[in-house]
Amino acid sequence: MHETTQPRQLSLNAFIYPSGHHEAAWRHADSAPDRIYDVSYYQEIGRTAEAAKFDAVFFADGPALRQNVKHYAAPGLEPITLLTAIAAATTHLGLIATASTTYYEPYNLARLFSSLDHISGGRAGWNIVTTGTDLAAANFGLAKHPDHAERYSRAREFVDAVVALWDSWEDDAIVLDTESGIYADPDKIHEINYVGRHLRVRGPFNSARTPQGHPVLVQAGASNDGRSFAGQYAEAIFTAHQRLEDAQAFYSDIKARAASFGRNPEHVKILPGISPFIADTEAEAKALEREFNELTVPAYGLGQLRNLVGKDLDHLDLDGPVPVELFGDAGDVTDNSRSRLQVIAGIVQREKPTVRGLLHRLAGARGHRVFVGTPEQVADTIEEWFTKGAADGFNVMPPYYPGGLEVFAKTVVPILQERGLFRTEYTGTTLRDHFGLPRPESQFAGRAAAAQ
Amino acid sequence: MHETTQPRQLSLNAFIYPSGHHEAAWRHADSAPDRIYDVSYYQEIGRTAEAAKFDAVFFADGPALRQNVKHYAAPGLEPITLLTAIAAATTHLGLIATASTTYYEPYNLARLFSSLDHISGGRAGWNIVTTGTDLAAANFGLAKHPDHAERYSRAREFVDAVVALWDSWEDDAIVLDTESGIYADPDKIHEINYVGRHLRVRGPFNSARTPQGHPVLVQAGASNDGRSFAGQYAEAIFTAHQRLEDAQAFYSDIKARAASFGRNPEHVKILPGISPFIADTEAEAKALEREFNELTVPAYGLGQLRNLVGKDLDHLDLDGPVPVELFGDAGDVTDNSRSRLQVIAGIVQREKPTVRGLLHRLAGARGHRVFVGTPEQVADTIEEWFTKGAADGFNVMPPYYPGGLEVFAKTVVPILQERGLFRTEYTGTTLRDHFGLPRPESQFAGRAAAAQ
Repeated sequence: MHETTQPRQLSLNAFIYPSGHHEAAWRHADSAPDRIYDVSYYQEIGRTAEAAKFDAVFFADGPALRQNVKHYAAPGLEPITLLTAIAAATTHLGLIATASTTYYEPYNLARLFSSLDHISGGRAGWNIVTTGTDLAAANFGLAKHPDHAERYSRAREFVDAVVALWDSWEDDAIVLDTESGIYADPDKIHEINYVGRHLRVRGPFNSARTPQGHPVLVQAGASNDGRSFAGQYAEAIFTAHQRLEDAQAFYSDIKARAASFGRNPEHVKILPGISPFIADTEAEAKALEREFNELTVPAYGLGQLRNLVGKDLDHLDLDGPVPVELFGDAGDVTDNSRSRLQVIAGIVQREKPTVRGLLHRLAGARGHRVFVGTPEQVADTIEEWFTKGAADGFNVMPPYYPGGLEVFAKTVVPILQERGLFRTEYTGTTLRDHFGLPRPESQFAGRAAAAQ
Repeated sequence: MHETTQPRQLSLNAFIYPSGHHEAAWRHADSAPDRIYDVSYYQEIGRTAEAAKFDAVFFADGPALRQNVKHYAAPGLEPITLLTAIAAATTHLGLIATASTTYYEPYNLARLFSSLDHISGGRAGWNIVTTGTDLAAANFGLAKHPDHAERYSRAREFVDAVVALWDSWEDDAIVLDTESGIYADPDKIHEINYVGRHLRVRGPFNSARTPQGHPVLVQAGASNDGRSFAGQYAEAIFTAHQRLEDAQAFYSDIKARAASFGRNPEHVKILPGISPFIADTEAEAKALEREFNELTVPAYGLGQLRNLVGKDLDHLDLDGPVPVELFGDAGDVTDNSRSRLQVIAGIVQREKPTVRGLLHRLAGARGHRVFVGTPEQVADTIEEWFTKGAADGFNVMPPYYPGGLEVFAKTVVPILQERGLFRTEYTGTTLRDHFGLPRPESQFAGRAAAAQ
């Protein structure tokens, strides 16, 4: 660790979900479900996040209709195009989209993110997922979703190939000598000749290196494979923890894994999700959360839970206790949905909720941490996690949009700024600048190899 | 044909190529090759096209580096993201991107174009190609580029699956009843259960139907398979003809094919390419073309021609005649690059150019029609082709950007408007409105089938 003149700064992403992260947000008067196909709605949210100096906005994604849309206002628009439109309405805000290594081709996905990085002047990030749902397989001609180990094996190859494509044109490949008629130096444009077990990609890429060198690599898997992948590749990690001690354990584990790969642990930003209900008093904040919970449709929540536990739940009494055996086999975390199950099992063991109580607990942010309180209390918990080795920042998941982000920006951000924890102005223009990440050199720099 | 109060109107697309369609444009002082990774450059071009009331901008594409970038300033940015950024800078302009059915997955591509149509308020078009170059295969793990018949067989399945995905949510699927907690009607969201020889896609799609019902289907293949495909699917066709009589024959053929599929031939717009060098006098226009031709690098043009004919050309004398046998076997048009060859063979037979002369001829627009003259002469030839059954409009291919589009917009468009051939104001907001195409009904409308 070297000394810096500025104290360590928080990172804050705004995780955009069409009507908000609370599953019933679309029914609440403060959301705008009629605008989830309206690009100006997302551009306004982007401007709100940028005015509050957020590092980035963040979108989840999966190539399937997995929600029960009878009772849920989603999914909406494809994130990479949507972020491109947000890029056009902002100047500094980072732009992170989730995309699947299981259901894309590396050349196509490399192009989309490269283009977003060029278009936005260096603000793109890719949240790498292997896709958790079986539903996607049937949209891609597969009889079955590949198993967890296979997906991670492909994911490693995929990221290696994509980064090599992004590196394919060295930074100084373009010569632009109109006099002699030399546009680019072929010795600085490389075939990547990637040959793996799942993927073969020759290259070269068909676009120049991007402002950030390459988009920021983000990751969100919490399984053992996911953590190992994160330690090796991820520059930012989105994670779900209910309790400080769990978050601290995860934080230490990932930083150690990064170091074991020879990486600087400071260049791996760990960002837990937090979904805050905010009001002037704690009682009002609790009343606000209750207002949303009372709008939930139990059939929706039970369906989501059934998908997760893989068991029929229709016999359950909403006002009876949650049977602990529902989560009996969630102890051994080998994949990400099971790690989500483990979080829920912890809630059930500690809090012993009724079925309805558990559904309300999960309605807020699908297992992510819901925090209910005043702006001071929200800032306090953010500071606590940030200073006690549990987080480098947060993926803020407003329960409802656009108001839930606006209230955070207006009431919590100024407190964090006053405490010196969060920027009052951007000090750079790229997402790497905001996250404090170095711009990577091309892996081909200095290597002689002709493209054609 | 029914009577209309307004005379038949031309369609005009601006086909955007980074520095212009002339291969040496990037060396000319009137181009801006330093801006081909700068989104504002394309947004300005889009605004120029919109101010001149163009129907659309159009981008070519292929997932490989196929140009010899030593002497050529390309390729640049990925078109769907780029069009999304242009959408944000315009309000009426149509937005057409080329994308490959051979090297994409239907679910992913359907999402990108659907999202572009939502974001732009109904301005998206997809130029469907099967990809003409072998270079792409190696970027997608294939030992060999699939043959022409296989590519078209997959293309038909691909378009059927994509259109079904776009139709998957009926127009009135979203109920948005916050009171009862019903967001969407599951009976109006359909699995597509597409099963073909190449592709299997279950659906449902994960986004609502778009403003245009679905993006406009554009096509550019000139082979027999390509024409048959166009007759069945295409709503607009981009084509290359040097001579009026060839264009007329193509036009009649496609309209007849469309009718044979039970379609209204007026709903298939045929748009030949035209690359105009424009100046106040014909002599100045010819001098301008010569200026560009003198900037060509023969090694680049020979390389492009070698890729097309598949024969080594290094032995050719630049100032000697073109050996006719180079194109000896181009008579039987079975695929699109051979139809391009046939166009070139026609030039060689009619004009008997030197090798250098042929390279100059092809430098302008890769076999598309280059027209050199005054604004009146350009307008005359456009009117002639439009009124004599050769074209419903044109894909305008400025030899250099941005100036080549600006001079067309400033000098040719007003003449076409004065003659009543081209709109002076947009009469609608979608690309379908501009092209005079109907909004298609969902193929699932009225069918009872539950999504989940």
